[in-house]
Amino acid sequence: MPEIFKNHLEKFIDIDEREFSAILAFFQIRKVKKKENLLVEGQICKSHYFMLNGCLRKFFINEKGIEQTTEFAIENWWLTDNFAYERGLSTEFYIQAVENSEILVIDREAQEELLIEFPKMERYFRFIYQRAYAAAQIRLKYLYDFSKEEFYDHLCKGHPEFVQRIPQYLIASFLGFTPEYLSEIRNKKRS
Amino acid sequence: MPEIFKNHLEKFIDIDEREFSAILAFFQIRKVKKKENLLVEGQICKSHYFMLNGCLRKFFINEKGIEQTTEFAIENWWLTDNFAYERGLSTEFYIQAVENSEILVIDREAQEELLIEFPKMERYFRFIYQRAYAAAQIRLKYLYDFSKEEFYDHLCKGHPEFVQRIPQYLIASFLGFTPEYLSEIRNKKRS
Repeated sequence: MPEIFKNHLEKFIDIDEREFSAILAFFQIRKVKKKENLLVEGQICKSHYFMLNGCLRKFFINEKGIEQTTEFAIENWWLTDNFAYERGLSTEFYIQAVENSEILVIDREAQEELLIEFPKMERYFRFIYQRAYAAAQIRLKYLYDFSKEEFYDHLCKGHPEFVQRIPQYLIASFLGFTPEYLSEIRNKKRS
Repeated sequence: MPEIFKNHLEKFIDIDEREFSAILAFFQIRKVKKKENLLVEGQICKSHYFMLNGCLRKFFINEKGIEQTTEFAIENWWLTDNFAYERGLSTEFYIQAVENSEILVIDREAQEELLIEFPKMERYFRFIYQRAYAAAQIRLKYLYDFSKEEFYDHLCKGHPEFVQRIPQYLIASFLGFTPEYLSEIRNKKRS
């Protein structure tokens, strides 16, 4: 299963078996059950998660008490509350398993040691953050530019496998819809 | 003036005078006049900008023909359309000087060579993108969580120097207000 991580590393850096074993030693492998929380609002955000399989989501609870999903992570994605993780702060977010998942977990101190011991991992994480930042900029543009309906349309066209896979009430939570309103839009699209 | 860049590098990596001169050789220094465009919608996004002084903004023109500002950059900030820059694509954005500014400019090929010749710059850019990504995640949460009025309040409290410095019609463009609506809110706050 950690081979998924090795393949991902190899997209960005050259790495041999011996190095990979040494790098993997900085991580724990963890299985999480659907609906299990990895992080809860108010906790210190200590860990960074790499997805081997399954799906996680990140959400916060808004003033109205509603879960607002801000991110999903599937195979080969990293997930954490990056601001709190980097600074060892408590988080305003929850991270929860959407499906039974297998993940690699690294703590901040271990990640820092990893980067010192294997400077090529600086290059790997530079690419990871660079792409995540570029993707977040695009999300920001969509939030300004698209109505919620347009954003849903865009999601269906651009990532149909994603819309199929994620339960509808979580798609609604991501889009800032009520589940009922999402049903309405889906029915309109079908007719 | 490039000393500002050296000071910024030194926050993240150790660097001596000789190395700094060699790193600086990958950049051009450029002066831009207020309202001058560095990037225009449809152009290939070739360059990454580091701010020595002044202020730039990034915006796109929405369906209604209105300029929607998505980012500002002041001293010590990097700015580009990261998605288009990394892939050598044409951009949907404009980058324009808000004030007369002095900037360092690096092109994608030069940045790649720089990273190969000075691997410690991988560490520097890893930090830059990591922090930019964390900041973008916070922006995303605000866009979901705050009304426009709350976002303006938050901006005034958290970054008063910024709200003072940027012309009001651009603050309005960043918040997605009309300038008239921003005036109204400001008058309400004063009374």
